Amino acid sequence: MKLYNYFRSSASFRVRIALNLKGLPYEYVVVHLTKDGGQQFDPSFRALNPDALIPVLADDDRTLTQSLAIIEYLEETHPEPPLLPRDAVERAYVRAIALGVACEIHPLNNLRVLRYLVRKLGASEEQKDAWYRHWVEEGLAAIEARLVAEKRTGRYALGDHVTLADVVLVPQIFNAMRFDCRLDHVPVIMGIFGHCMELPAFDDAQPSRQPDAE
Amino acid sequence: MKLYNYFRSSASFRVRIALNLKGLPYEYVVVHLTKDGGQQFDPSFRALNPDALIPVLADDDRTLTQSLAIIEYLEETHPEPPLLPRDAVERAYVRAIALGVACEIHPLNNLRVLRYLVRKLGASEEQKDAWYRHWVEEGLAAIEARLVAEKRTGRYALGDHVTLADVVLVPQIFNAMRFDCRLDHVPVIMGIFGHCMELPAFDDAQPSRQPDAE
Repeated sequence: MKLYNYFRSSASFRVRIALNLKGLPYEYVVVHLTKDGGQQFDPSFRALNPDALIPVLADDDRTLTQSLAIIEYLEETHPEPPLLPRDAVERAYVRAIALGVACEIHPLNNLRVLRYLVRKLGASEEQKDAWYRHWVEEGLAAIEARLVAEKRTGRYALGDHVTLADVVLVPQIFNAMRFDCRLDHVPVIMGIFGHCMELPAFDDAQPSRQPDAE
Repeated sequence: MKLYNYFRSSASFRVRIALNLKGLPYEYVVVHLTKDGGQQFDPSFRALNPDALIPVLADDDRTLTQSLAIIEYLEETHPEPPLLPRDAVERAYVRAIALGVACEIHPLNNLRVLRYLVRKLGASEEQKDAWYRHWVEEGLAAIEARLVAEKRTGRYALGDHVTLADVVLVPQIFNAMRFDCRLDHVPVIMGIFGHCMELPAFDDAQPSRQPDAE
């Protein structure tokens, strides 16, 4: 398999973790998001993914896009170890936490969104950073509230097994730290983060350990 | 089952379509997003969902959040008729289209995001509308490009059976029309939209047919 990705992309980071957890080797193909005006806009990459978004996973002649769809695909084609529990209600719970990051936080802090704020709405650097932190801090607080209320939390987001929820939470925390977001209001999430980072699958997938890290 | 929702919420609209397609009756519970400062912020609703987001599906004593997680749950607990194909690659394709709306378009046009633009960044009504249209038009163009390139498109997004991709696309088109977005650049999507709207499951779920429609 080939993973078209970028060290700093948190959606790419999710897929790297999932591949590592499943013990699947892959070729790392760099798509540099800022060099050459953004290599994701190259016609050759757009032919692979018209969205001009990473990650893209190429599995033989099949091209897969959208990190959560890729991870569900890996789960279906390589079920061990499972990243989703067996019970339908618990699966929905795990997916809802993952979507709480993937739909409520991350899209607002994408590079192209931040660029729009600055270039078209004239936001200052300070306003841009405040925007970033607002959605991260509010989004994580909502997830924290759920983790506290649900009482299903253990070493990880759901009990003592790593799931898709952890796979998506951890890269978001890396982003939050990079942009100096407040994190002292989400101690349960930070506990889960610490436990995940003890695992080589998470540690090896982090931005600074990638071949294109700057 | 009880669906906590709002006629105009497109994430709610997705779940209404899925429930209708599966032939599952449900009680419609209104959570008015603008009345009383937003009923989603009521402590009673926040106890149900700390995200203060709709839809929420209550199935007996189980509370499910995030529209895509809810639909995957319905798919797992009520598999007929299927909203995901059997083949793993095709499932990933359908999910990627759904996520192309749910992660790349819809989060940017949420009520709370538009409010932030106006209240905190001082965006004018015109700038707010331009923002809305930008993400809808660009996001739909990317999906259109994929539908054209993949050649898997039929009467619906994947061949001649309704899938999750259609369930998520249709409410986004309703939003696009409400905000006068350009749609002449996405003829394949509009064809799919037309075919979907011929089905009672889609038609009955549309905003104007809901009990709280204004």
